[in-house]
Amino acid sequence: MNYQMIGFVLGRLLWTEAALLLLPCLTALLCSESPFPFLLPAVLLVLAGLLLSRKKPAQTALFARDGFAVVALAWILMSAFGAIPFVLSQDIPHYVDAFFETVSGFTTTGASILTAVEPLTRSGLFWRSFTHWVGGMGVLVFLMAVLPMTDGHGMHILRAEMPGPSVGKLVSRMSDTAKILYSIYLVMTIVEIILLLLGGMSFFDACIHSFGSAGTGGFSSRNLSVGAYDNAYFDIVIGIFILLFGVNFNLYYFLLVRRFRDVLHSEELWAYLGIVAASVLAIAVNIYHIYQSVGTSLRHAFFQVASIITTTGYATADFNLWPTFSKGILVVLMFVGACAGSTGGGIKVARIVILAKTSWGDMRKMLHPNAITTTRFEGKALTDKHIRSVHLFITVYLLVFTASFLLLSLEQFDLVTTFTALSACINNIGPGLEMVGPTGNFSQFSYWSKLLLSFDMLVGRLEIFPMLLLFAPSIWERRRNVRRT
Amino acid sequence: MNYQMIGFVLGRLLWTEAALLLLPCLTALLCSESPFPFLLPAVLLVLAGLLLSRKKPAQTALFARDGFAVVALAWILMSAFGAIPFVLSQDIPHYVDAFFETVSGFTTTGASILTAVEPLTRSGLFWRSFTHWVGGMGVLVFLMAVLPMTDGHGMHILRAEMPGPSVGKLVSRMSDTAKILYSIYLVMTIVEIILLLLGGMSFFDACIHSFGSAGTGGFSSRNLSVGAYDNAYFDIVIGIFILLFGVNFNLYYFLLVRRFRDVLHSEELWAYLGIVAASVLAIAVNIYHIYQSVGTSLRHAFFQVASIITTTGYATADFNLWPTFSKGILVVLMFVGACAGSTGGGIKVARIVILAKTSWGDMRKMLHPNAITTTRFEGKALTDKHIRSVHLFITVYLLVFTASFLLLSLEQFDLVTTFTALSACINNIGPGLEMVGPTGNFSQFSYWSKLLLSFDMLVGRLEIFPMLLLFAPSIWERRRNVRRT
Repeated sequence: MNYQMIGFVLGRLLWTEAALLLLPCLTALLCSESPFPFLLPAVLLVLAGLLLSRKKPAQTALFARDGFAVVALAWILMSAFGAIPFVLSQDIPHYVDAFFETVSGFTTTGASILTAVEPLTRSGLFWRSFTHWVGGMGVLVFLMAVLPMTDGHGMHILRAEMPGPSVGKLVSRMSDTAKILYSIYLVMTIVEIILLLLGGMSFFDACIHSFGSAGTGGFSSRNLSVGAYDNAYFDIVIGIFILLFGVNFNLYYFLLVRRFRDVLHSEELWAYLGIVAASVLAIAVNIYHIYQSVGTSLRHAFFQVASIITTTGYATADFNLWPTFSKGILVVLMFVGACAGSTGGGIKVARIVILAKTSWGDMRKMLHPNAITTTRFEGKALTDKHIRSVHLFITVYLLVFTASFLLLSLEQFDLVTTFTALSACINNIGPGLEMVGPTGNFSQFSYWSKLLLSFDMLVGRLEIFPMLLLFAPSIWERRRNVRRT
Repeated sequence: MNYQMIGFVLGRLLWTEAALLLLPCLTALLCSESPFPFLLPAVLLVLAGLLLSRKKPAQTALFARDGFAVVALAWILMSAFGAIPFVLSQDIPHYVDAFFETVSGFTTTGASILTAVEPLTRSGLFWRSFTHWVGGMGVLVFLMAVLPMTDGHGMHILRAEMPGPSVGKLVSRMSDTAKILYSIYLVMTIVEIILLLLGGMSFFDACIHSFGSAGTGGFSSRNLSVGAYDNAYFDIVIGIFILLFGVNFNLYYFLLVRRFRDVLHSEELWAYLGIVAASVLAIAVNIYHIYQSVGTSLRHAFFQVASIITTTGYATADFNLWPTFSKGILVVLMFVGACAGSTGGGIKVARIVILAKTSWGDMRKMLHPNAITTTRFEGKALTDKHIRSVHLFITVYLLVFTASFLLLSLEQFDLVTTFTALSACINNIGPGLEMVGPTGNFSQFSYWSKLLLSFDMLVGRLEIFPMLLLFAPSIWERRRNVRRT
């Protein structure tokens, strides 16, 4: 491993976080709260950053395993430092709770250990939701967008941090790709803030809910989440925006450069919209007897489906009380997740489509062993290597899920709570069912379980491998032969 | 498709079932019950068999898709006819219920719609459990053992009916392989009957429970299952025998021909025993506070782990009342299943081991892209094609599971009942948790759900593809070019 270069990148990242902490600092000053809980960690971050990057690296090349290591360590460090303000402000007195909440923020999970969010300091609420925004598009992608780095380093980092089965550079230069992605992200967030302001939401709340939508996170400034407003306009604006943030950002770039054909022919987009439409209809019919109104049923069904498939986790209704069929659909959507290359989590629609199409082709081959079948996705033939990597993802995902499920079941909560709490964390959604339903929270889990779930949230956000490979002894080996690629 | 040859095989199969019905007939005469409920379907089977095999097939070759079709149709037909006695004897008045119970019998699931089994006729009870014995080793394997067939037909049938990721012929001739497997199966069943008789069980009950163990089915003649005896000796004998029937039968053949090295080096065997040992210990510790005795905790833990991992489903304790961790382990074991080439169901230990080892190798490759890794299983290097077929199995398994889960959740039972009822059926176990726990049953499901679950039991027993491919239009095409293989 290239320790010097990794230290250098991590050092720069900590400085970036120190700079980001100035925003909640400003919020504190504006709201007449103490800025101290944010200033102290900012100073710590600057010092730690200095320590890590004190030597200019002789070798700047990063290989695949360096990419995994730097991404995993970056997210752990960001969360570890980002939790300090909550402890200092006494918003969340225990550090493990604060760490869980911060991991949940950066990973855009939105699972909370807080029984009520309204008593928090304004600056604390702001920082909590701002972590969603930062984590949504990726902290290292952000670093690449703002720091001058040569391309050799970037690809492995981008690959390890961006969700989805394959990562394509939009333009030849990595830093330009990162800049384009972040610009689209920023503009969409601002448009959502404006639309929410137009509907009469306060500026602070509009920011909070736009950060939560943009990162598909789900932290709210209200105890009842978006449901607190009981406002159809807000439901529709937020519902549409979380769906938009769940789309592959490459498609927005294609729209900008007028490659409309690529957008129209995106298999993943159509599959995503198809799943959303089918789920909304099925749930609306299923919950009609509760709300006795076509409009209200459709509105709640639309908002909840959008919120769960994009793994945001906002709620306008207590879906824990919905019929089993509706809950079943939502549980399935928890695993499906959003599109690759979006800010959403889960397995990703692209992988589901690839798995379904590959299985179909392989089954045809069973009947006609001599037939030559090629499975195509997004217009390109899928290679065996590509298919194998998707299978690997699903398999390791299931293994990690099973191991975490057994460890979490030691808590002695009921099976649905255990299963959906884990699903909600590993898929970066937030709320599950029963005790961790939309009106519940994660406060009753032990500190060990909170650390386990924090690990699972990072596993989900970084798509398993960076976190898991941290445990492989060979990732820590110093590189012996630099010329090997 | 070679309709004539398929009709011929199916016709012979129906005659075999007619012959098998003579056993419950005899039981009825011995117990002074009416033999009529078994005689009438036997006559029907002979006539239907005549109808199907009236023409001697000109072409006897069977290709892969013929193998799938004949196996799927065979199991559906066997169950459809096998259900008639229960309706005629009024043991189970409604045909769909009787069909569910018979599918559950042949597939060695052991899920029951009966609220009490003790009121049944003795001959009905006998037939119900005898279906386990017949289904355990496979109905078409049985046909191959007793009927003279050339080898060309057999392989595709064996492959489609025998559980596990790969099927090896033990000896060069298919019918000899089938004979060897059935002889081992028969001898082991007889030994278990004798051991149960020695412990003081009645001959009838000893047969019932040995059939249930041999097929890893789980139907009992007692409402409380094996727990009704509350006898440590029976628990241990049955527990050990179900574990033995969950082992790959090839290993017993190796023992017979003194290939001890092959047995000792079986990775699947050691993984299976390791999982059993770890689960027994973990559960015994976890339930110690309930039974307040090391011996009783170990006994119940051992029996339940053996019963669930082999997908038998006998119960000595109401594990629905156990702590969440123990229930969690049992739910995971439901999916793991027994060894390939055994009478048990589930995903199979061999597939889990292959998936784990392949994933480990693929993850190593992520860190060291230039390293050449070969994954070996049972001493042989796994080919990409072999690994792909295991991945295909898991993927399609998950897709079928998800679709069935959504359909079943329309019943509006709680999520744990829905999830574990489906798990118990698709993995051929029998009992699940909550409403379908060891003291519950499937009577409250609608007829539609019973048919869906019957389909899932067949999907599980035949390892998905034969049942699924029945829906592929191209399987029904008449063969155009016979020379194609």
